[in-house]
Parts: sequence; structure tokens; C-alpha cells
Amino acid sequence: MRYNVVKNAGRIIENSAYLIKNPEAYKGKWKEVFGNNHPICLELGMGRGNFIIEMAKAHPTVNYIGVELDKSQTATAVNNVGRQKIENLRFIHADAHDIINFFGKEIDTIYLTFSEPWPKKKDEKRRFTHEVYLRLYDRIFKKKKHIILKTDNKILFASSIESLSNYWYTFKKVSMDLHNDERNIENIMTDFEAHYFKEHRQIYYLDAESDC
Amino acid sequence: MRYNVVKNAGRIIENSAYLIKNPEAYKGKWKEVFGNNHPICLELGMGRGNFIIEMAKAHPTVNYIGVELDKSQTATAVNNVGRQKIENLRFIHADAHDIINFFGKEIDTIYLTFSEPWPKKKDEKRRFTHEVYLRLYDRIFKKKKHIILKTDNKILFASSIESLSNYWYTFKKVSMDLHNDERNIENIMTDFEAHYFKEHRQIYYLDAESDC
Repeated sequence: MRYNVVKNAGRIIENSAYLIKNPEAYKGKWKEVFGNNHPICLELGMGRGNFIIEMAKAHPTVNYIGVELDKSQTATAVNNVGRQKIENLRFIHADAHDIINFFGKEIDTIYLTFSEPWPKKKDEKRRFTHEVYLRLYDRIFKKKKHIILKTDNKILFASSIESLSNYWYTFKKVSMDLHNDERNIENIMTDFEAHYFKEHRQIYYLDAESDC
Repeated sequence: MRYNVVKNAGRIIENSAYLIKNPEAYKGKWKEVFGNNHPICLELGMGRGNFIIEMAKAHPTVNYIGVELDKSQTATAVNNVGRQKIENLRFIHADAHDIINFFGKEIDTIYLTFSEPWPKKKDEKRRFTHEVYLRLYDRIFKKKKHIILKTDNKILFASSIESLSNYWYTFKKVSMDLHNDERNIENIMTDFEAHYFKEHRQIYYLDAESDC
């Protein structure tokens, strides 16, 4: 699936009330941003925001922050919110590596939905479940670590199971075919996913946690 | 795939030199059966034995024991060996539950290849990776626990990842598509698998271990 380049993406981002322009300023203080003590969930690589926007609407007592590096996609996420008022949602336009500058130990769950799979061996350190990233997440999880991942990519999924398990995560739930799983796992589709769903492509899912 | 009923299966089993008729007698003494100190690997549900026979031939310095409850399949495994001399191979015709009566802490690896998936929730305790079985395996693994599983069944595979990980196993290697995995994972095909391979069905693979 290709993305369109959004004209004036910079201006759209700049003018959005959902965009946190200086996330460093709120490190350890995100409660203040949301004005409550609700759990805070992060989506890394939110893309055009479909998933996190719908999650925020479905769960008003949970706070959601979407991080996206691509300017056009971030602008599209802003446009997708439009005039809706979603109090428990914010966006950050930044590189995922920088999360350690934005957050203290205050995150409850990290969502990784249809992340760039980086299937080549030489790129494995770029995968959001590589140990390089798991170490970053350690620095922002509140207490219990909790990662939920969805992908259609076999290599990303297999390597995620390997790296998470070797980093002392255990799997609460795994599905090899999310859309045909009889356990009724909650699933809000991303735009990628809706596209794959039409093509009957198999979606892999995991819900991993760790107390270590 | 359907199995044929083998005529005279009982007699074929009875007369085979590969069949250990009284496995209880060798509990803790399988070294003596093989006459060496090589590692001992077990396949539970060996079916018609294709996998374990080829493994034994490929690895002469490892000992292999196949366990199968079905009489016709056990007899077919015996017939499949035929006149070949495979010193490092034995069969046991018994229920997998009984392994704790046959072995002391002397097993290095357990292979589960295309085990009955028991996909219904009500049957989950019958899956060879259910905690019920993992507890049995604890009693026969020499030191380090090591399980290798192959299946084409999504439900068995997902639930195996869940149960193994919650039983402190970690995953050394996972593949969502064994036959197209660029890492060249050693793979001797079972007869089921050769059949699925022709149909381009995806084969799931995991290699799990635990020191706990």
C-alpha cells in the first residue's frame, strides 16, 4: 500500500491541538497533559492513526499517544481526527528512538501494529521488537511491561516471538489468524489491516507481558 | 490424510527387533539399550515413523525413540524400517502419558511433529504442549529441556507458544513458514508434511528450551 504525500503536512501538524510539539517537556508528567490518572498506552508507528483513534474512542478511560516519524502520515492522522473531540488522544511527530526523552516510567502498554517488518537479516535491529528497542521500552514502562503486536509479516512475527521470549516476556495470547480466531480477541483494524482483510491475508497477533 | 488399517499389525510389532516390548524395564537404563552415551531423543506420536527413521539415519551419534499408540501406524513404522540396520533407533507402542514409566531423567530432546492438534477448547489438555504434558516431560528431561515442534495447525501452534512460554521455555528459533525460511533450518519431512508441502501449505516450527 502506498501513501500519498500530504501537501502542507508541516502546517497541518503545527496547527493541531492533538500534536504535542515539545514532548520532552512532559517527561514523567503525562498525567498533567491528560488531566487524569488513567493508564497511558503508546502506539509506535501509528501511521495514519486509524487504530489509535478508534482505540481512544472505544476506551475513554485509557489515554493513547501515537508516535509517527513520517510527516505526511502524521498529518493524515490529524486530518482523520478532524473535528472530533477525543480528550484521551495525543500525537507525537518524532522518531521512535526518542521515546526515552519523552517519557519516564509511565507507560502501561505499547502497541505495534503493522510496523515496518524489516525482513532482511541486516536490518533486524530496526524491528520494533529487537532487543535494541526492548531495552528502550524498559525505561518507559510503568511497572509491568505489556506489548501488543499485530502484523501480516511472517518474519517479523517469528523474530518477535524469539526476541520477546529471550527478553523474559511471556505470551498471554497468540493468534496465527486474528480474524478467524474463535476467542474473540478485541480488534480494531488499522487501514493496512482492512486492506489485508479484504485479501483474506492471515494476520498474526501477540499479547506479551513481563514483570522482570 | 487417512491411514490404512494394517493387517496383522500386532504380529508385525511383536516380531520387530526395533520394538521395545517392556520399556518399563529400561527406566533410567536406556544407555544400556543403545550401548553408548549418546544423547537420546524422543518423538511422541511418531505416526508411521518417516521422520524419526530419517533422523536416526542422518544422525548416527544420536539415539532416537519413537512412541506411538496406534497399532497400525506402529506396524507401518516397523515395515518402513524393513531390512535396514539402524542401530540408534527404537520404537515403543504405548500411550504418551506412560513415558514417565519408561524413562528416568535421560531424555535430551522431545520432537512433536504434526501431533494431533485437538483444536477444540474442550480438548486442549490433550495437546502435547499442554501444561499437563509439560509436567510429564519435566520428569524425563536429563537437564536442559528441549522441545522441537512442527505443525500445520494454527491453533496448536499458537497455544504451544502460549503454554511453553508460560512454562518458562524460551524460543531459540521460530518459523511461520519452515519450507520458505531462509535460515535453512534442518528439516526432514514427515509423510504428512510431504503431502502438505505439495499443497503449498504453511508449516509452523518452533525450537524451545528451558533451564528451569
